[in-house]
Amino acid sequence: MADLHAFFHPRTVAIVGASNKKGKIGNVLVRNMIDCGYPGRIYPINPKAEEVEGLRCYPSLSAVGGKVDLVVIAVPAARVINVARECGQAGVKNLVVISAGFKEVGREGLLLERELTGICRKYGMGLLGPNCVGMIDTHVPINASFSAVFPQRGNIAFISQSGAMLVAILDWSQTIGLGFSRIVSLGNKADLNEADFIADAADDPHTRVILCYIEDVARGQQFLQAARAAVRKKPVIILKSGASQAGARAASSHTGALAGSDLAYETAFRQCGIIRARSMAELFDLAVAFAHQPAPGGNRIAVITNAGGPGIVTTDNIEMSDLAIARLTKETARELRSNLPPEAAIYNPVDVLGDAGADRYRFALEKVLGDQNVDGAVVLVCPTAVTEPEQTARAIIETHRSHPEKPVLAAYMGGKILAEGARLLAEAGIPCFTFPEPAVKALSGMVRYARARELPAKVEEPAPEGIQREPVRELFQKVRQEGRLTLLGSEASQVAAYYGIKTAPIILATSPDEAAARAQEIGFPVVMKVASPQILHKSDIGGVKVGIKTPREAQRAFIDITENVQRFLPRAVIHGIEVQKMMPQGTELIIGMTRDVQFGPLIAFGLGGIYVNLLKDVSFRLAYSLTREEIQKMLTETRAYTLLRGYRGEKPRDLEAIIEMIARTARLVLDFPEIAEMDINPVFAYTDGAWALDIKITIS
Amino acid sequence: MADLHAFFHPRTVAIVGASNKKGKIGNVLVRNMIDCGYPGRIYPINPKAEEVEGLRCYPSLSAVGGKVDLVVIAVPAARVINVARECGQAGVKNLVVISAGFKEVGREGLLLERELTGICRKYGMGLLGPNCVGMIDTHVPINASFSAVFPQRGNIAFISQSGAMLVAILDWSQTIGLGFSRIVSLGNKADLNEADFIADAADDPHTRVILCYIEDVARGQQFLQAARAAVRKKPVIILKSGASQAGARAASSHTGALAGSDLAYETAFRQCGIIRARSMAELFDLAVAFAHQPAPGGNRIAVITNAGGPGIVTTDNIEMSDLAIARLTKETARELRSNLPPEAAIYNPVDVLGDAGADRYRFALEKVLGDQNVDGAVVLVCPTAVTEPEQTARAIIETHRSHPEKPVLAAYMGGKILAEGARLLAEAGIPCFTFPEPAVKALSGMVRYARARELPAKVEEPAPEGIQREPVRELFQKVRQEGRLTLLGSEASQVAAYYGIKTAPIILATSPDEAAARAQEIGFPVVMKVASPQILHKSDIGGVKVGIKTPREAQRAFIDITENVQRFLPRAVIHGIEVQKMMPQGTELIIGMTRDVQFGPLIAFGLGGIYVNLLKDVSFRLAYSLTREEIQKMLTETRAYTLLRGYRGEKPRDLEAIIEMIARTARLVLDFPEIAEMDINPVFAYTDGAWALDIKITIS
Repeated sequence: MADLHAFFHPRTVAIVGASNKKGKIGNVLVRNMIDCGYPGRIYPINPKAEEVEGLRCYPSLSAVGGKVDLVVIAVPAARVINVARECGQAGVKNLVVISAGFKEVGREGLLLERELTGICRKYGMGLLGPNCVGMIDTHVPINASFSAVFPQRGNIAFISQSGAMLVAILDWSQTIGLGFSRIVSLGNKADLNEADFIADAADDPHTRVILCYIEDVARGQQFLQAARAAVRKKPVIILKSGASQAGARAASSHTGALAGSDLAYETAFRQCGIIRARSMAELFDLAVAFAHQPAPGGNRIAVITNAGGPGIVTTDNIEMSDLAIARLTKETARELRSNLPPEAAIYNPVDVLGDAGADRYRFALEKVLGDQNVDGAVVLVCPTAVTEPEQTARAIIETHRSHPEKPVLAAYMGGKILAEGARLLAEAGIPCFTFPEPAVKALSGMVRYARARELPAKVEEPAPEGIQREPVRELFQKVRQEGRLTLLGSEASQVAAYYGIKTAPIILATSPDEAAARAQEIGFPVVMKVASPQILHKSDIGGVKVGIKTPREAQRAFIDITENVQRFLPRAVIHGIEVQKMMPQGTELIIGMTRDVQFGPLIAFGLGGIYVNLLKDVSFRLAYSLTREEIQKMLTETRAYTLLRGYRGEKPRDLEAIIEMIARTARLVLDFPEIAEMDINPVFAYTDGAWALDIKITIS
Repeated sequence: MADLHAFFHPRTVAIVGASNKKGKIGNVLVRNMIDCGYPGRIYPINPKAEEVEGLRCYPSLSAVGGKVDLVVIAVPAARVINVARECGQAGVKNLVVISAGFKEVGREGLLLERELTGICRKYGMGLLGPNCVGMIDTHVPINASFSAVFPQRGNIAFISQSGAMLVAILDWSQTIGLGFSRIVSLGNKADLNEADFIADAADDPHTRVILCYIEDVARGQQFLQAARAAVRKKPVIILKSGASQAGARAASSHTGALAGSDLAYETAFRQCGIIRARSMAELFDLAVAFAHQPAPGGNRIAVITNAGGPGIVTTDNIEMSDLAIARLTKETARELRSNLPPEAAIYNPVDVLGDAGADRYRFALEKVLGDQNVDGAVVLVCPTAVTEPEQTARAIIETHRSHPEKPVLAAYMGGKILAEGARLLAEAGIPCFTFPEPAVKALSGMVRYARARELPAKVEEPAPEGIQREPVRELFQKVRQEGRLTLLGSEASQVAAYYGIKTAPIILATSPDEAAARAQEIGFPVVMKVASPQILHKSDIGGVKVGIKTPREAQRAFIDITENVQRFLPRAVIHGIEVQKMMPQGTELIIGMTRDVQFGPLIAFGLGGIYVNLLKDVSFRLAYSLTREEIQKMLTETRAYTLLRGYRGEKPRDLEAIIEMIARTARLVLDFPEIAEMDINPVFAYTDGAWALDIKITIS
């Protein structure tokens, strides 16, 4: 991971393309750097100017004479290469390339971008961009961007792959008084990417919450590592677009980025403990909540309201999320009963009634926050004739101060009457919304984060025992030498067996007599199926015979199958007939793997058999760092789990054996990146053990 | 349905409990009525005052002398009864009872409320409330409420079961300039309810969109009828709370309402074409969209943006909703290509680039709205150095005027820089949001409405032929006389047969010889099962024998089953052994019915067999007005449908036969409200026909 301390804290900054012409980016860059109060030295570079915005202007970087830590480049794309080279030779540490005209404009731009990256790599320079708005740190302070707005100082780091969105958000943030620690416009991510900035923000003392808008990740593994480590320190909230097919198309035409599938992102985010925002509003609602409120210790929420309807709406939203309505202790109920009017609802939601002033809110909030069964609170205020919005705000703020470990969020449902109260709350760090739903959503995100933070730090599991890597490698080589990419069932079974996956014995026979002999070896009854990767639905053409009980039947089956196949598919290449032990019926499961370009192997688990695609009862995990604990969770996410635990009086299946098989499958596909796809369908799970029956492996 | 013309257009209004004391409800009511510009006569009633707010005050209603159309009552609950009686005697047409202290405070209040309703019924008076904020019509104008805010005139009717929420919304509406035609606070709904006001608003020329917040409906059938009729005239958007269990609890403690299950509401809303809002924000976002924009003719949406990122976010949201990204015609693409800069993206989303001024937006919007492949548009504006927010707003407004049949929504992503442009748009009726997601959500709601509006008007289907009602009635009577509530399998089968549902023949036998004889009648092979409503899992105790092929085996099975049951459940009452035709294996389905307190029978359809509860592949419809077309839709919503159409090369099942069975089941449960629950599981569907195998019927 890049060390970005020097990037955000340069002692000297040069701006190449500095200009005196108002409105030009080269002018805005210089002005922004001056106006933000940057404490270091600023060197405008432009051979045609003596002075820019009152600063001495240099004809070139070398003319500066002294060391320059950071160079911001805003010259036409074609000239960027030369400037970068000059920077490299002068020992510059980092570049921010504002200029557009690179990867995003097509092949020529891509080549230019590669050249630029090559230069940066050669000289060990970090590079933000190209084609970006720049970066800001409000605490340094530094403004190496052409943003028209310098944000209010705060504790939110915002990293955005879209420059326009970043500028829009900065403009909008002023209307709600949102403060930022850092702003990073990623641009084309030719070098520094979201993972670098997430990792650095995780260690930045001024950042409390990390916000990202991304359309893809640059490097899957780097991202996973950075995100996982960051989440243990502070919340990482990401809005990821490009999820829909058309969205992905737009993404690729926009930044030329290679988008991973949304499933892989969804899985990766969950496995890292990233909170995924579903909309821009949610992204910032979560940011506001995390910026000043603690993550709750649990999910039990108290609601205080002065009106029934909004209380019910809030309760609904709590119950439909992963939050729960807290059950107040008897002590709390008693206290509320004796101090609130008799008509007040003293069970959660606590209805302090329409005539409640600030004191009643203060009392109720004090009691519920002091309740050991409450992990956080939502306070609702509706305007009535006697509502005291500002005093109530102060009561909330003060009461929260004595319970700083529990989050408090508010909804002030109204307009002008409540505006000042809402402002007071926001200013004091109590997130205040117009409607209750976003408050509940934000709290729900906080609870999810609190759980994710507890994910175990060390995620590497010891490799399963008894693995034979070399024979698998040799087998793949043999298959490739034969010009095939799909393994025969017996080969796939062999591969699985080398990795300690229990498979129903299966052997290839090439004559009726061999079939009989193999069947005898394996033990009757057996199943026999044609071995031909070209034939997908073997049963449909008479390519499978089940329940073979004698050597004679085996011979007969060999002949029958061969004849059937020759009749229906005379051109199919037949490698022989596979003889497989016929296993007693077990619970049918599927364990599979598909490979994502960004995040590598995705392991699937679910109900197996012929209805896999119909029922779609499948859960996914990334194979990387897949712990047994995660596999266990993966199981519980499926309906198959209900069957496995013993459905309608049946005995439970051997969960350990299933977990073991998943772990070994994950190891196999990690060890062999050439495995493009793999399906074990069905796996038969029994009360004792689990066996792989049919295995398909495709290599690349 | 109540005729509410007189309610909203009274020529004279009396306010009982009128007061001169500022801040008192009795004073606010009089002031509100005067201030709104009510054109009729206002009579304050209070024996202790000569004059209220400059109007002559009368000691009693009878003292007024003339006819009073509407009386607003704001005296303590105990005195309301007498006032109401006096109103009745004086020929008053409608009452608005503001006073609280009725059903919501417990049993005593409930009795008081019943008395009040009785008086209103006796004199034929309409009653709004009690325990409500009142009502407003901005076009009459009339303000029979104690709301502190008189809303801006507009075309949104808002009907709310929560008074506090209504007041909060009115306060908030001023900050965004939202206009209303009507405001109704339902209160306890002792008489007039949401259905009455929905029906009336549907015919109100000043109302374009009907908005409701409800916690329950008063009368299911009335509601369905009103909503269905209203939806054909204008959109009905409902936020229904009390969905979660705890939510339902809170609802019942709040209004004492008997809440139906959320599933029934969900189904009812969908069947009526009601748009269900999922949050308060969504309720009003939809309202704003419907208030001024036309419902689109289809779901193909064009996006115009000046920045890539927001375009991708919008595309994602469109693709993930029931909207589609429009494919522009070649002609449009050609026009855009020749008139926009070369870097512009001319396929949808159309990216007019960051340096776009108003003219470029105008050109692009004109072209996409003129495209026959486009049903509506979302315009995104991000602030850049050259953005022209106000001129762009005007361009959008003017362009939309030449394509008034297609909805246009906007997202102005930013703060102060864009505020005036956003205001211009909102004022001109172009909904303008801060972020793109709500625009897409609103458009999606509009598309759903456009589809719902097309639902056939006449929903009564002819009753299925060959139905014998009388014998079913007699059979239920017989079962009840025997002191049972659960029918035997053979009885349930008989009931189904009377309604033309094909059932696998099943006959009760009470001796081994009879069993043999019955089996011969039916034809071998047969299944035999113990007939005892007390035994739930018959197989588990040896109460079922399958594949019986001879009379001898039938005799043997009778003895075996009897012995097994006597051994395991010696106390079970055995009515005999049922002999049923063994049907060949078909696709296993379930058709079931559960009865909702509000909406009556809910019909379920899905995958059957023992995994029903595991797979939960079930769709629901209300039995009332269930058309064949709806049944067809119901089928397609399940995964079972994929099986039925012919999965993996199998022949399709007889869909007509399944539809027929559902229609007949619906008829049966509508004809016999005493059927509390019914399950046909499994139904075996074949390529030709569908047969009911196991039927359970419980009566009440």
